[in-house]
Amino acid sequence: MINKFVMPEVIFGHNSLHQVGESCIRLGAKNVLIVTDQGVMEAGWADVVEKSCKSAELSYTSFNEITTNPKDYEAELGANVYVENECDAIIGIGGGSAIDVAKAVAILVTNGGTISEYEGVDQIKKPLPPLIMAATTAGSGSEVSQFSVIVDSKKKKKMTIISKSLVPDIAIIDPLTLSTKHDHLTASTGLDVLTHAIESYVSVAATALTEVYSRNAIRLVSQYLRPSVASKLNKEAKEHMAMASLQAGLAFSNAILGAVHAMSHSVGGRYPMLHGDVNAVLLPHVMEFNLLAAPQKFCDIAELLGEHIGGLSVYEAGKKAIEHVKQLSLDIGAPQSLSEMGLEEKIIRELSCLALNDACMITNPRDIKEEDVERLFHQAL
Amino acid sequence: MINKFVMPEVIFGHNSLHQVGESCIRLGAKNVLIVTDQGVMEAGWADVVEKSCKSAELSYTSFNEITTNPKDYEAELGANVYVENECDAIIGIGGGSAIDVAKAVAILVTNGGTISEYEGVDQIKKPLPPLIMAATTAGSGSEVSQFSVIVDSKKKKKMTIISKSLVPDIAIIDPLTLSTKHDHLTASTGLDVLTHAIESYVSVAATALTEVYSRNAIRLVSQYLRPSVASKLNKEAKEHMAMASLQAGLAFSNAILGAVHAMSHSVGGRYPMLHGDVNAVLLPHVMEFNLLAAPQKFCDIAELLGEHIGGLSVYEAGKKAIEHVKQLSLDIGAPQSLSEMGLEEKIIRELSCLALNDACMITNPRDIKEEDVERLFHQAL
Repeated sequence: MINKFVMPEVIFGHNSLHQVGESCIRLGAKNVLIVTDQGVMEAGWADVVEKSCKSAELSYTSFNEITTNPKDYEAELGANVYVENECDAIIGIGGGSAIDVAKAVAILVTNGGTISEYEGVDQIKKPLPPLIMAATTAGSGSEVSQFSVIVDSKKKKKMTIISKSLVPDIAIIDPLTLSTKHDHLTASTGLDVLTHAIESYVSVAATALTEVYSRNAIRLVSQYLRPSVASKLNKEAKEHMAMASLQAGLAFSNAILGAVHAMSHSVGGRYPMLHGDVNAVLLPHVMEFNLLAAPQKFCDIAELLGEHIGGLSVYEAGKKAIEHVKQLSLDIGAPQSLSEMGLEEKIIRELSCLALNDACMITNPRDIKEEDVERLFHQAL
Repeated sequence: MINKFVMPEVIFGHNSLHQVGESCIRLGAKNVLIVTDQGVMEAGWADVVEKSCKSAELSYTSFNEITTNPKDYEAELGANVYVENECDAIIGIGGGSAIDVAKAVAILVTNGGTISEYEGVDQIKKPLPPLIMAATTAGSGSEVSQFSVIVDSKKKKKMTIISKSLVPDIAIIDPLTLSTKHDHLTASTGLDVLTHAIESYVSVAATALTEVYSRNAIRLVSQYLRPSVASKLNKEAKEHMAMASLQAGLAFSNAILGAVHAMSHSVGGRYPMLHGDVNAVLLPHVMEFNLLAAPQKFCDIAELLGEHIGGLSVYEAGKKAIEHVKQLSLDIGAPQSLSEMGLEEKIIRELSCLALNDACMITNPRDIKEEDVERLFHQAL
């Protein structure tokens, strides 16, 4: 098998956000579009970016009309702003939503058409403008990934767009931005990181290059997610969670994901739930389903999570990983069922059909049928 | 501290060499310069590259006037060939020598001047033509690194050029190319990989992103270098050594190296010795010197090499790493002293002065003075 691996230039560390302007200049930009959201603006991080642009003598225009689980029409609006202002590069600053919209804007301004034309793998034909992405959530990994996930507002489903062109030129990860997140968002995005790490590790497309990052991300989440949720001031825990997010992002960008994300995308297209919350509920159920396909890998995961597996068979040790994830999710107050977040039973069949066709389902380690997906949704309800 | 990490797009796997032509096309090339050496041509790998170019309908010119520890005038000659043939991209295929010359040619054709003007860190101002590098030795890591090391033929010293511009666009690693290496070259380049992994791991510029790759490379070398030397036909061992070389390359490209490489560069500028052989002799001596600076890291290395460290102090465990490296070097028949390779005692003072000023010395974990370098050379003599 031929393994391929791509990643952007990465700048990681406290106050690295101040390097965003200079990074744009290095890429030849003169007039950038800054894509962000309301929360990031209120936290003051958009100001830091604007100041950095000013001191680099860059012109800029801001666009922030973005919602959680961002929509196709938001990207189209952003593309209009880019064109009207004759921008030549794009900064995305925020969590997965802002960054995924920034990428979708980039697709539209050089490739034209509507965003749904680019759903799936390798549908982007023309090069994108320079992309500089700054992550503020330690969750999505989108700042380093080949992915953009955008809601098709007519079909009410998430479209997964996968292309090497979507790997940004420069990714900036400043762990200081995590200090303004509330504990629920920290828990939700942290469990998203764990889901990225676990799904990429058991993915049928995992390689020696992605596995080292998946493994290390699992280890870091198991050590630092609880303390990171417990205190906004724990800088060490935030920094390690930012690193976990980055490494899990590098892993899944190249190894792709699995059934949790395929199912979660179908839910996110319909309900305004936090992506990390949905993943958190689905993860242990899907792990149980997938255990049959990769017992040794689940055994590794148990060990990376800090479980004692001495004296256990590989299969029994693998089960420990599932129990560990359930307990972690309880400890940090994550939702425990989809129904408590408002998911209705009657929609499960429709969601299952969508999930089965999501690009992330292709790399799930166990063969999966529509009835399996339905059963998993019922278990998680 | 702000951590930066860059790497090329990587294509790894059996027969990936056949993708070189298509890779050039993706980068917009029409007429490439192929830089290679005599050994690679005799092994038939240059033919594979030429066929791949032909089937991608690329024009090409070959340049192969390259020696071990390649010289500045070889790069200048290559640059003339590039310009005369109006090339627009460069393929380097071979070990560190061919790839480092390919990079030096790239510097000259867009930046002009002589190669010595670019010695040191970040001296390259203008963008380079598209670079596609295919490694055939599982040693240098140059196919993914920010480094090019070229001999200044007048001063008889190696110049270390470090710049993000030198990271190729695409790195191709085809483990099948390792099957044509003789056992001495396999041993020499394998110990170079180990040196990259260990020096990058204890480097003062190591980060969480580089450490995962250093650690994994050490583990792979300890498991697969012996069997890879033992049999040309052991494909599994070759593949793991190719992966070790790649991961060690990614680590040192971003964490830089240390005293072994600084000293080895000074030797390589003067004598036609294999770079890996010189490193192999110097490595345990420098590890002993550096143990004081990073005992925990040397303890980790011992564990990664498979040593039992239970019941030992961190410092005692660290010493086990040094013993392990000595034994490995003996087992695979590597040279055990610099004098047996022809190094003369009278030149040590001069070499030490050069080594102290090599860019790789900056990241050595222990402060080092000229008399320390001299003493280390005497120990290794």
